Order: sequence, then structure tokens, then C-alpha cells
Amino acid sequence: MKILIINPNSSPEMTADIDKSAQRYAAGEFEVTTVSTPGAPEYIDTYQDMAACQSGMIRLLRENMDKYDAFIDACACDPNLDVLKEISTKPVVGIGEASLKMATMLGHSFSVVSTGHRSTPNKYALIRRYGLEEFCASVKAPGEQHAECDAYELYLTTARRAIEEDMAEVIVLGCAGLCELVDKLQEELGVPVLDGVVCALIIATGMVKAGLSISKKRRYALTAEEG
Amino acid sequence: MKILIINPNSSPEMTADIDKSAQRYAAGEFEVTTVSTPGAPEYIDTYQDMAACQSGMIRLLRENMDKYDAFIDACACDPNLDVLKEISTKPVVGIGEASLKMATMLGHSFSVVSTGHRSTPNKYALIRRYGLEEFCASVKAPGEQHAECDAYELYLTTARRAIEEDMAEVIVLGCAGLCELVDKLQEELGVPVLDGVVCALIIATGMVKAGLSISKKRRYALTAEEG
Amino acid sequence: MKILIINPNSSPEMTADIDKSAQRYAAGEFEVTTVSTPGAPEYIDTYQDMAACQSGMIRLLRENMDKYDAFIDACACDPNLDVLKEISTKPVVGIGEASLKMATMLGHSFSVVSTGHRSTPNKYALIRRYGLEEFCASVKAPGEQHAECDAYELYLTTARRAIEEDMAEVIVLGCAGLCELVDKLQEELGVPVLDGVVCALIIATGMVKAGLSISKKRRYALTAEEG
Amino acid sequence: MKILIINPNSSPEMTADIDKSAQRYAAGEFEVTTVSTPGAPEYIDTYQDMAACQSGMIRLLRENMDKYDAFIDACACDPNLDVLKEISTKPVVGIGEASLKMATMLGHSFSVVSTGHRSTPNKYALIRRYGLEEFCASVKAPGEQHAECDAYELYLTTARRAIEEDMAEVIVLGCAGLCELVDKLQEELGVPVLDGVVCALIIATGMVKAGLSISKKRRYALTAEEG
Amino acid sequence: MKILIINPNSSPEMTADIDKSAQRYAAGEFEVTTVSTPGAPEYIDTYQDMAACQSGMIRLLRENMDKYDAFIDACACDPNLDVLKEISTKPVVGIGEASLKMATMLGHSFSVVSTGHRSTPNKYALIRRYGLEEFCASVKAPGEQHAECDAYELYLTTARRAIEEDMAEVIVLGCAGLCELVDKLQEELGVPVLDGVVCALIIATGMVKAGLSISKKRRYALTAEEG
Amino acid sequence: MKILIINPNSSPEMTADIDKSAQRYAAGEFEVTTVSTPGAPEYIDTYQDMAACQSGMIRLLRENMDKYDAFIDACACDPNLDVLKEISTKPVVGIGEASLKMATMLGHSFSVVSTGHRSTPNKYALIRRYGLEEFCASVKAPGEQHAECDAYELYLTTARRAIEEDMAEVIVLGCAGLCELVDKLQEELGVPVLDGVVCALIIATGMVKAGLSISKKRRYALTAEEG
Repeated sequence: MKILIINPNSSPEMTADIDKSAQRYAAGEFEVTTVSTPGAPEYIDTYQDMAACQSGMIRLLRENMDKYDAFIDACACDPNLDVLKEISTKPVVGIGEASLKMATMLGHSFSVVSTGHRSTPNKYALIRRYGLEEFCASVKAPGEQHAECDAYELYLTTARRAIEEDMAEVIVLGCAGLCELVDKLQEELGVPVLDGVVCALIIATGMVKAGLSISKKRRYALTAEEG
Repeated sequence: MKILIINPNSSPEMTADIDKSAQRYAAGEFEVTTVSTPGAPEYIDTYQDMAACQSGMIRLLRENMDKYDAFIDACACDPNLDVLKEISTKPVVGIGEASLKMATMLGHSFSVVSTGHRSTPNKYALIRRYGLEEFCASVKAPGEQHAECDAYELYLTTARRAIEEDMAEVIVLGCAGLCELVDKLQEELGVPVLDGVVCALIIATGMVKAGLSISKKRRYALTAEEG
Repeated sequence: MKILIINPNSSPEMTADIDKSAQRYAAGEFEVTTVSTPGAPEYIDTYQDMAACQSGMIRLLRENMDKYDAFIDACACDPNLDVLKEISTKPVVGIGEASLKMATMLGHSFSVVSTGHRSTPNKYALIRRYGLEEFCASVKAPGEQHAECDAYELYLTTARRAIEEDMAEVIVLGCAGLCELVDKLQEELGVPVLDGVVCALIIATGMVKAGLSISKKRRYALTAEEG
Repeated sequence: MKILIINPNSSPEMTADIDKSAQRYAAGEFEVTTVSTPGAPEYIDTYQDMAACQSGMIRLLRENMDKYDAFIDACACDPNLDVLKEISTKPVVGIGEASLKMATMLGHSFSVVSTGHRSTPNKYALIRRYGLEEFCASVKAPGEQHAECDAYELYLTTARRAIEEDMAEVIVLGCAGLCELVDKLQEELGVPVLDGVVCALIIATGMVKAGLSISKKRRYALTAEEG
Repeated sequence: MKILIINPNSSPEMTADIDKSAQRYAAGEFEVTTVSTPGAPEYIDTYQDMAACQSGMIRLLRENMDKYDAFIDACACDPNLDVLKEISTKPVVGIGEASLKMATMLGHSFSVVSTGHRSTPNKYALIRRYGLEEFCASVKAPGEQHAECDAYELYLTTARRAIEEDMAEVIVLGCAGLCELVDKLQEELGVPVLDGVVCALIIATGMVKAGLSISKKRRYALTAEEG
Repeated sequence: MKILIINPNSSPEMTADIDKSAQRYAAGEFEVTTVSTPGAPEYIDTYQDMAACQSGMIRLLRENMDKYDAFIDACACDPNLDVLKEISTKPVVGIGEASLKMATMLGHSFSVVSTGHRSTPNKYALIRRYGLEEFCASVKAPGEQHAECDAYELYLTTARRAIEEDMAEVIVLGCAGLCELVDKLQEELGVPVLDGVVCALIIATGMVKAGLSISKKRRYALTAEEG
């Protein structure tokens, strides 16, 4: 089985981080490749960023459709996920949807720990789109500014406050760049901490093995005439 | 006051229809211009269509930011509306949001009469995104196939069934191309029939006069650093 | 075009404030008249106040049905709006519904800044009735006591807290009497601040121009036999 | 214990029907009196009807506050219930709220069987206001026209369709005038059939015995200054 | 009329407290008996506790079906209520459902005051199951540890904070063991304080008098074949 | 890795069917064992059935906690899932939750195809508990009677109606006993058909590999004192 992880941004560091997390989960049992999106911005924070990476993501998907068994959209805001699902004849999974939905099976409510306040409304919009408002304790970021992804102490404190003040029982990391912190955070916090890349790999590899793929009836039909 | 209507597709016929509807509403009291989106597909039905018109819409907005007072996204599925609102320092209104929200002020519940079943899930997703599920009686299309926009009798029958069977009290046209039918349908049906182009002009011109524009705090801040 | 604004209370000062706001928006392009409701209490805070102004509002609407093209219910709690919509054959718009629904087109979430805690549950009930809970960041008032409408600093601080603490991106004024503060607040806060009187005029004048009016099918049919 | 049932309309026949139902439930264990509302219309179908009975209902409540221990608003649409709760220092219960809420304790979902399609949107609005949408299988009426309250066969057929087609497990009568049919319907249908007058008596007499009454904190405080 | 109150736990002290509250409400007008559940744990906090008392509760219900007219499940988390309703041919009422639903008729929103944080998610899950999220101001407990039921001052402070900070207008006691505090709390707080045992007695005795019982159509049919 | 599938009923045929489905998915890559629940009824349809299998399921979980890495609750109504999650220190996944949540990642809306109308309300209650109402097109069963699990044609017709009439884009099998039909149905229907056993294996094996397990903070803490 071969999985392609599409990092919607163009940061080689983040692509390397995502790939490390993915290879560790794959553990040689399936092939996984992570690619940056050509022409994409360095980070995906704004709607302009999501627009700027769209054509690159679509091209990556189209060019690799025959070479891979499933595809992962590896930004926690699931950018351009609908169009990828429509184009694809194979499973496509967003790290946002996979981690948020798996979180609901592990405890009463989750908090998303994110990098900055700027993207908080987008997270809430995503959570609402997936119908998960009532399972979300909070979306929390260390502060107004976009925090660096390696600021371990900041994220630990933020997650702890989510658990104690907002009654979260599960933590979902709100940025693919945070995946390196997952083990340390989980050990320290004593609650499940979800890395979206791993969650999406769980779902995507499972779909491949089970022979499941995106429904081509209506919403994600390949063309306007079909469906 | 000058308003720019961006027709997200490239069909000159639909652009002409939209413009006719807009000029009639403007009645010379304000300037309104309707443009097709260069590089866009002829119709916007699929997520691929919405992706294909995105860069053209953004370019039209950026190039005209200084020349107009407000902008309208003239496809009933409000394609790329979030990114336009983020980029713009002036009001941007979607014909979908304007017509659906105005419908709730005119009766107990509305039905959207649309062109084909293919886009029905997208309409429901849009209605849910705007939190209007409980005010929506139904989304109805004449049949499985994409119907021609001038098939008056088909739409009349469909709307009548929405009113009698689904208890709709207001009809929202689900495609900008249907705007020519609005008067005949309203007269025949005896309930309000909403043309999204007109609804968006109401909201957009009102915002301009009132000095209102998109909040630049967080969700639609111009850049990731601001907001 | 002629619009009648019905101030549900009997305070000549508030009627004058509302009229000033309305005339400024009208700017001579349409006629607008603001009247106090005879027999109404001086302020509308309680359900008893809403009951006390009901017959006066109905009488004003009936007597002026032929003389005006649309009517505005100018109290932010939209008192007696359903019965006015039922009686009227022309557009009737509440300043509450107009401002709350327009707010959702300008940012991720809004806060209502109101005059006192007594009416906070009523505001939440109104927001729920319009299905807007998920777009409401908070309803905030300066304190337990009913604050004077000219206490600018108090409202500024309250709105600022809504923006910073509750993540509001748009402010809706929760009392028609606050409309004088709108420009100063918007300038100082840097986010859209909505005056319900202006929002209702936008919607009502637009409906008149577009030939739209309240559906007379079922819920707002003129009599029990019709509809 | 003394309960006053306020029939919001002026029909002596309906008042007699309600009283008969109430006396049968009371069975001499408590005193219950049913009064018509002076100045009210003969039936309560429209918002104008609800407005027309408001001042009479308020007067009845005020004049009898000291003479009774609790009050019932005996129209299934709970007209003017908020203002009565605000004025009263003793329990006030609507037959709509009591029957709809009790229905949720007796089965998975209920259907309201009502007199005509005209009032169906109002029923749905009431159900939504009480947050009971997900427990409501349907609101059904025999036909477009307002049916006579003694048309037993019509209501039986309507209720049966609600049970079989809409999967209702409990029937709530949507008009106080239907209370005479409750026993026959329940026997024939084999599911609980709720008479709102009886449900409201259950709740109101229970509140009196338990020393419970409307909260005077904020929403229903007696005056704007209190609460 | 004879009512059996099933205390799902095996604590004789709590059974005595519940019985005292019940007898006081009954005031000799109907017979009421309270029994502990044999084999049950001393307190019901966890899902294991709810499982451990299930067979005892079912046995109590089956053995007493002919001897009583209605049954009450006297733990605020309504343990095993669905199975009791299915087995029973007579009314079965949970003290959780009765108190939460009655609370919505007494004020804008309620807070549940509970014994410890451990059970807070369960309370929220129960409130969501009954569709009452929007009427719930908060679920509050004195602290992380399970507080003793006689710690009056602790509960008073907790309830007061719910009223002032969370805008609750009604207090629902979240544990049957707190019923002794109800009068003192209500007097001190000045808002309705609901004892679930009393609320369930109101509903259950009313159902008996009115000839109402659990629907045996589908969800609670006695066997898989019926219904 | 070793997974234990607990079939909540005592039918050896259904256990064999479930095991066959599981072994096929496992394909030798991990060990999976399926056991019937001792003392359980032959089918799980009613709340009494769910109660009757509870102690057996708990015993199976406790006895095997050290021998397996994760556990699956293999009845589509997820019986006793909360108590299993509380007891377990390792992942526990219900086939209901896994299939319903995975369905939302494969198309706009799903329909559950179930064995009989008796259990339809329970399915809706489960879907509501998981917050998935808005993604559910319908719950459909072949007829009033409990259909045999091998009645292929019946289920095909039922699923087809769900797709055409209710606009479902994904089918979820509502009974573990239907898992043998999944391939034929998927091929014939042309949309994804989900077998809950496979879905739960996907999630459970993924959790094991990723080092994730049930949060022991509050809701599912092992004891009342912890958490």
C-alpha cells in the first residue's frame, strides 16, 4: 500500500516533520511519501494561503492518482478538501477531520490547541462544519501572536488550562507542525493527545484495506453530469 | 456609488442576464457593472468549477478594489466568498448568503429551487454553514438532470410542490441564471420569490451608504500577522 | 418611497434620536418618518412593556398602511413583530432581526452590547429564535443596572471586552437609543458597529424597490381563513 | 388549592369543554375554575387573535392573583405566556409547554395533531422555542381548512398516519377544543394521547404543593428595576 | 394511589432522606414507598455503578409491577431509565428528566449544582440527551473532590456563583442526597431550587391520575416482536 | 497486536459471521478473536437485551484486559459502550460509532439500513448522541417485521430507496449480522457500504499502533475517586 501525504504549504521543515511522524507510524508496514505543495506559501493561516496552495494541491493529486492508494491533506484546517475528494477516485482524508472525529471516541470533549488567535475562528468554523460543536471544550492558542511550533512549554501550559478550566478530556493538535510534541505532551498531560497526521493515516490505510472510497454519488461526483 | 458584480463563470449569456437584473434594480440610482470571470468554466456546479474560477475572481477583486465601493459574488453557492472577504477592504456580499438570510425575514420557511440534484448537497451544506437548517423547508430541483434555466414550467411546478408539500412560504432561486423568471414566478405562485443578485445589491449598497465593511479582526484580517 | 419607523416606546427623546439616525441614512433619497407609540411606556424592557405598546403599534400600522411603503419596528427586541407582519401587506422589518442577520455577513461572530442585565435573557431568546446562537460571541451589558444611553465610556469598555475576551468581530447595538454612539464606537473599536435602525432601513427600502413583501401563505396570512 | 384556567378565547363552548376536562382531572381534590377571556376573539388562530386576547388575559391574571394558587394559559399555542409569567408571583403554566414536555417522557417522539394547516408554522415555532425539534415526529392537521373539533374520524386518521408514517409514539392534541376526544383516541390508537389542559394541571398543582414558582431573577422579574 | 421510589444505590441514609422528601410532598394524599436497590453500590457515580445497580433495579420493578401505580428512578443521572420504561406497563419517571424539564418552565435557564467534577460530563451528556443544552446555564460542583451532601455552605456558594456568573435563574439539585437542603437554599437564593424526587412525584402521580403511561409503540415496546 | 471482538449476543452464527469479516480484514497482519457473550440473549434488539448482556460483556473485558491490545463492541447499537470505556485501560471501540463517524468522511450524508422498525428509534437516539443528525439522510428497514439477515434483495431495495429518495450517498449497515452482504451491496449500489466490524477494526488497530487510549480524565476515569 502506498500513501501520499500532501503538505499544503511549501516549508521543507514542516514537510520533514510530517514525514517523520508518518514514517514512525508506518513502521515499514506500508509506504508513505510526504511532499510539499509547489507554489504554496510557507504557512497556511489565511484564506489567501488556502487559495494559493489550491492549484498545486490539485496538480499533485491528479499527477499521483495512479501511483498511490490514498491521499492525505496534511494541514489541520483541511484546506481544499472538498475539491480533492471530488477529483479523487481513491480515499482522501484531511488531518483535521480525522483527528477531530477520532477525538470524540476517546473522551467526553476535546480542546484544539493551536498556534495563534488569528486562526481560532477558522477552527471553530471547521468544527461546526463537522457538526462537533457540542464535543468541543475549547479552541486555545498560547497568545495573540502566532507561536513557534517548538515552544513546548507554551503548548503544555495552554493544554493544561484547556483540561482544567474548559474540562477537556482529549487534546487535538491544531497544526501539523506540532506533531513532534505529541509524545511529550501526552506523557506530561496524562490524556490522549492527537496528531492529525497519524489519525489521517489510520483512517486512510483502513479505507484502502477495506475497499472503501469517496462516494461518487452527487456531492463528490467526478463531473457535473455524473452523480 | 459603484458596485462590481463578479459572475464567477465565463458564460456571457449568464453575465448579461445578471446585469439585466442588476440594472433594473439599480434604476440609475447607482452604477453597477457585471463581469465574467476570465479563465472560469462556463457553469459552476462542482468543487472543481469553484476551484477553477478562484484565481480569476481574486484577480478581478484586487484589480478593482480602488474603482468600486462594493463587490458581489454572483453565484448562488457563494464560491470563494471567504477569501474575497479576507482580501477586501470594502463590502463583499454573496448572492447565496443575501438571499437565504433575507428569506428568513419574509416567512416561516423557504425552499431553494435549484437546477439539478447534483448540487443539492452543496446547497444543504451552504444552508447549514449559515445556520439556517431550521428555516429551510427543502431544496428542490426539477429532476436528476441539470435543467435549462429557461424551462419556466419546470421551475413553476417544482416551486409549487415546495409550497404545498414541504410547506415553504418563500422561494429562493438557487441559480443566478434563473433571475429572469423571478417576476413571472412570484406573480403565479403568490409568495415572495428571491433573486439573489437583487438581494445582494440591497445588502451591499446599504453597507456602502452606512459606512459598514467586513471586520478585519481575526477571521478576515488582511494578513496572518494582523487581526 | 416613504418609510414609517414605529418607535414602540413613548419617549420623544428616543424618537428624535432614531429619526436623526434614519434621516442621516436616508440623505434625502427617500422619505422617512419616525413616530412614538401612543399609550406606550417610556422604555421597553419587560414583557409588560411589550404588551403595553402592542395595541398602539397595531393602530399605527393599520392607520398608515396606505400612506407608507414599508414599516420598521424600532426596538432591538423586535416587540410584536409577528403580529405586525401578519397584519401588513407591505414589508415590515425589525431592527433586531435586521442587525443580527446583517452582522453574520460581516465577520465570524458578533456580540450584542446592551443596556442592562435584566434584558440579557430576552436578547438570547431572540438570537435563538433567529437561529443565530452559533454566530453570537456574547450578549454584554455594562452592569447590573440599566445604564444611561449616553454613557459612552461604559459601552466602549463593554464592547472592547466582547472583542478581546469573547472573540467578537462585529458589535451589534442592543438598544435603539444607542444609535448616536455608533460612529464613535466604530472608529475607536476598529470593527463594524451596527445600528439596527440603519440595518432595518437597508432591508426595508431594498424590499420596496425589489417588489418583495411578507409572504401571505400560512404563518402571516391576513386571516385564519386565508393562507 | 385553587387553580384558575384562563381560556384565551371567548367561546363559551370551548370554556365548557376545558372545564369539563379539568373537573374530571381534579375529581374534587382541588378547586378549579375556567373562565373565558373578555374581549377575546372566538378562536385563537392568528397573531392578531393572540394580540386581541392579551389585555383581557392580563386583567384576568391581575384581578385573580390573590384568589388563586396557580394559573393556566389554556390555548395550545401558549399565547402571551411570557408576559403572564412576568406579572405573576405564582405558578403560570401553558398547556402547550406542559403537554409537549410531558410527551418527551412517554416515548421516543411525538406528533402534534392540530386543527388546520394555517397554524402549523406557529406550532413548529413553538416547538423550536422549547428546543424540542428533535423529539417532534411531525405536526399534522386533517387538511388545509380549519377542521371542526368534533370531527373524530378525521383526527383519528390523522393521528394514525403520524404514528405509522412519521414514526410518532405519542400524540399531543394541538387544540384545547380537542380535549373531549382524548379518551377515545387513546383507546383506539394504543399510544398515549395528551390533553394539554390535564398536563398543565399536573404541573401547576405540583408546583403549588412543592412551593415552586416562576423565578423572579432577570427574565421574569416583576419590573425592569428588579431582577 | 401507590408510588414506588427506587433508590438505585444501597445507602440506607440516602433512602431515608429521599423518603422524607417524598412523604412530605405526599402529605398523606397518596402512598409512597422508598426502597434501596439490593446489590447496588453505596453511591452511583460511575458507569460501573450504574451497571452494578441495573439487575437489582429491574428485579425491584418486575416484582412490584402489580403492587404500585407508578415508579420513580431516584438518582439524578437517571440510571437504567430506558430499560425500566421498556419493561414497565405503568409510568416510570426519572428524577433527572423530571427536574430538568420542569426547570425550563420556571425561568430562562437553569444550573445543575452537583457533588463533584467527576460526574459533570455525565450531567452534560444527560442534558444533551434531553435536548436541553440551550436552557442550561452551567453544571457546577463545589470542587474537584466529591463533596459531602450536607455541606450546606459549599452548595450555597456554588449556586450563587451559577446565578451571578452564569446567569442561571433556576437551580436543579444534581444529587438525590441534596434534597434536604432544598428549602434553605431556595429561601437564601431567592430563585426556585428543584428537588428531583418531588419533581418526579409531580409527574408520576399526574400521569397515574390522567391515565397516561409509557408508549408501547416501537422504542419501549415490551418485546422485540411487539411494537 | 491482538484484538478481541465481543459479540454482545450469544448467537454462534452471528459470532462466526463477524469473525469471518474480521479475519478477512486482518489478513494475518494482526490477531483477532471473536467471542459470544455468555448469558446474553440470541439477538440484541431491546433495552432488556442490552441489560441482559451487560454483566457478560463486562466480565469478558475484565478477564481479557491483559491478553489483548484493544476491544470491539460488535453490535451496531453500541450496547454498554460507556461502561466498557470506563473499565478499560486500552482502546474500546463500538461498531456503531466507528461506522457512523467514518461514513461522514465518505460523502454528504449516510443512511443506516437496519433489520426492523422496532429498533429505528434507538438508531436515531444513537445518531443524536453522536451529534450526527445533520449527516443522516434516514434510518431505513425493509418493513415492520424483523427481517432475516440474509434477505439480500430486501436490503438492496431498501438501500436503493435511501439513495434515491432520501439522497443518501453512503450506506451504513445497521446490524453486525449484515456484514456478509457488504461486498455485493457495494458493488450493486455503487456507493460505499460500511461494515461496522471493519470500521471498528480500522480505528482500534490504529489507536493501538499510535499509542492512543480512552482518556481517564473525568468521564471515563477508572473509579469515582480518580479523574
